[in-house]
Amino acid sequence: MTVQDVLARITPASAAAMADARAHQSRLTKPPGSLGALEEVAVRLAGAASTCPPPMPEPAALAIFAADHGVHAQGVSPWPQEVTLQMVANFLAGGAVANAFAAQVGASVTVVDVGVAADLPAADGLLSRKVAHGTADLSLGPAMTVSQAVEAVEVGISVAESLVADGARCLITGDMGIANTTASAALICAFTGRDAAEVTGRGTGIDDATHAHKVAVVRQALHVNGIPESPLEVLAALGGFEHAAIAGFILGGAAARVPVILDGVIAGSAALAAAALAPAAVDHCVAGHRSAEPGHTAALDHLGLRPLVDLELRLGEGTGGLLAHPLVCAAVRVMHEVATFDSAGVTEKQP
Amino acid sequence: MTVQDVLARITPASAAAMADARAHQSRLTKPPGSLGALEEVAVRLAGAASTCPPPMPEPAALAIFAADHGVHAQGVSPWPQEVTLQMVANFLAGGAVANAFAAQVGASVTVVDVGVAADLPAADGLLSRKVAHGTADLSLGPAMTVSQAVEAVEVGISVAESLVADGARCLITGDMGIANTTASAALICAFTGRDAAEVTGRGTGIDDATHAHKVAVVRQALHVNGIPESPLEVLAALGGFEHAAIAGFILGGAAARVPVILDGVIAGSAALAAAALAPAAVDHCVAGHRSAEPGHTAALDHLGLRPLVDLELRLGEGTGGLLAHPLVCAAVRVMHEVATFDSAGVTEKQP
Repeated sequence: MTVQDVLARITPASAAAMADARAHQSRLTKPPGSLGALEEVAVRLAGAASTCPPPMPEPAALAIFAADHGVHAQGVSPWPQEVTLQMVANFLAGGAVANAFAAQVGASVTVVDVGVAADLPAADGLLSRKVAHGTADLSLGPAMTVSQAVEAVEVGISVAESLVADGARCLITGDMGIANTTASAALICAFTGRDAAEVTGRGTGIDDATHAHKVAVVRQALHVNGIPESPLEVLAALGGFEHAAIAGFILGGAAARVPVILDGVIAGSAALAAAALAPAAVDHCVAGHRSAEPGHTAALDHLGLRPLVDLELRLGEGTGGLLAHPLVCAAVRVMHEVATFDSAGVTEKQP
Repeated sequence: MTVQDVLARITPASAAAMADARAHQSRLTKPPGSLGALEEVAVRLAGAASTCPPPMPEPAALAIFAADHGVHAQGVSPWPQEVTLQMVANFLAGGAVANAFAAQVGASVTVVDVGVAADLPAADGLLSRKVAHGTADLSLGPAMTVSQAVEAVEVGISVAESLVADGARCLITGDMGIANTTASAALICAFTGRDAAEVTGRGTGIDDATHAHKVAVVRQALHVNGIPESPLEVLAALGGFEHAAIAGFILGGAAARVPVILDGVIAGSAALAAAALAPAAVDHCVAGHRSAEPGHTAALDHLGLRPLVDLELRLGEGTGGLLAHPLVCAAVRVMHEVATFDSAGVTEKQP
């Protein structure tokens, strides 16, 4: 499916289904509002699915989009670039945290090479969809061409489509790419208007000097590229291939009306691009967690999403999205299984 | 097992196992500290189990301790007292939110009548351990005798023992008792020294006038009873039977070195009693969530526990503890399944 096709298929949440969901919750055997933020999750998913109760978001499928970044050459990360490749091998061998969390919640794991700098041997669980061997350095000019950005977005769309065709009823975003928090910060600046110093974090762990340098690199990227008008041009100028692919993955899920649980700051910045292309796509997203990266909170505020897990994770890979999956399922399960005051013969609160 | 027996068996976390857990985490293929608060959960559980990695906390068993409260007569809740009984029937029929959440996380559900005001017919999944038909009104004098408090604590100990004997490797606290947030607030005042106005919340939902009255009732309870010296006397004066039983349940889990996930404000106030009896019991607890009740945060601060789920739930029943269970499992699973830098051939961060 092309970007234009997918955008044409995305529609907003159904207000009627959301109203039905709120009315149903008021009849359940629990004090009104007592499930806090989870009540809103169930209402959101009813709206997204356009039916109440919404379908159970199981099984879940995690897609980890992996790519490298030309900006790594600027010294923004303490990790060598080959760690992207090494971690892809770790995912495929089942040894990463994302694998452990996926096993815990019963999610499948698909790794997508959308732009790793090295050539990867074929392997079970690996989709080879390489757009290029890493992006160009976004602090010196556009990270990619617009046609590469479109190609990467369409990779994400097609991965979402095929996972849904295989039975996934919830999509979870994942990423791997050394230096990708730098591209995320640049995208967040471009889409939210925040300053680089506000949204640039310490990624996987950098000292004060490297952090100051990283802020300067983000600022230079915005200066060199300007902020283009169209979302695809912004993605091309400042993004990574995994950011573009995740934006497409979100759009693909939204078009299929399958909820997408967003992981951390990489997904949050990609979701800003998806929302710029199709504002209604956000109706189909749940914010899995709040990352320790400051840019993530800025992105979530802009998207109007409240994160479910808030435990200072800053790992990526989809780990925060995976942790949220049982919470999302629990919220929806309430709508299917909990008795009403009438059916259970429980007396209601006195007015 | 008597209270004295259980107290003699509780020992603190093993510092050696905690050090092993921290060292192991530093070798795993993830940036140091990137799992945020979940890393500390795994370290805690290693210390509690006195082994690294700690055993997987599965399967989990939820015990819902149900009881009624004489203080209900003071008009502190908008719900009629018979709702306790009706909700017990709802739990046994599988229709409550706790049942849906337990199904989601694969936990068993045991309902314990430790003091419901009405007589309950025998049923599958119901343990009849009634100490009395509800407590006396704590705003007029002691809620129960000390020997009743001991009996209720020993109910909790024996329920923990039998669930562990049946294979549970994680215990989750649950409660049902209309008006039990009033007793919780009184216990929290007594154990933390906070003022009634700071820790008394709106429970399942009350208006400003009822809230002001509830604060006055808590204050009167503290005035009438004073604050006795021994934790069992405090429980007897101000607690409910479910509070005493949950305190025993925590002690029983700690003695068996099986982790206990605490639910909300009822469990938090009961944990204060357990901690007063055996400070090392806290080493075996995980705070499942932070309730919307202000007293809960006061209790967690006093216990030194950080809650995992923070979504403004205020339902009780064990719902917040159940939601935390997959997070606790995920934290421990990392210790069992994630590859090390050496084993996976992943390059470490540059110094």
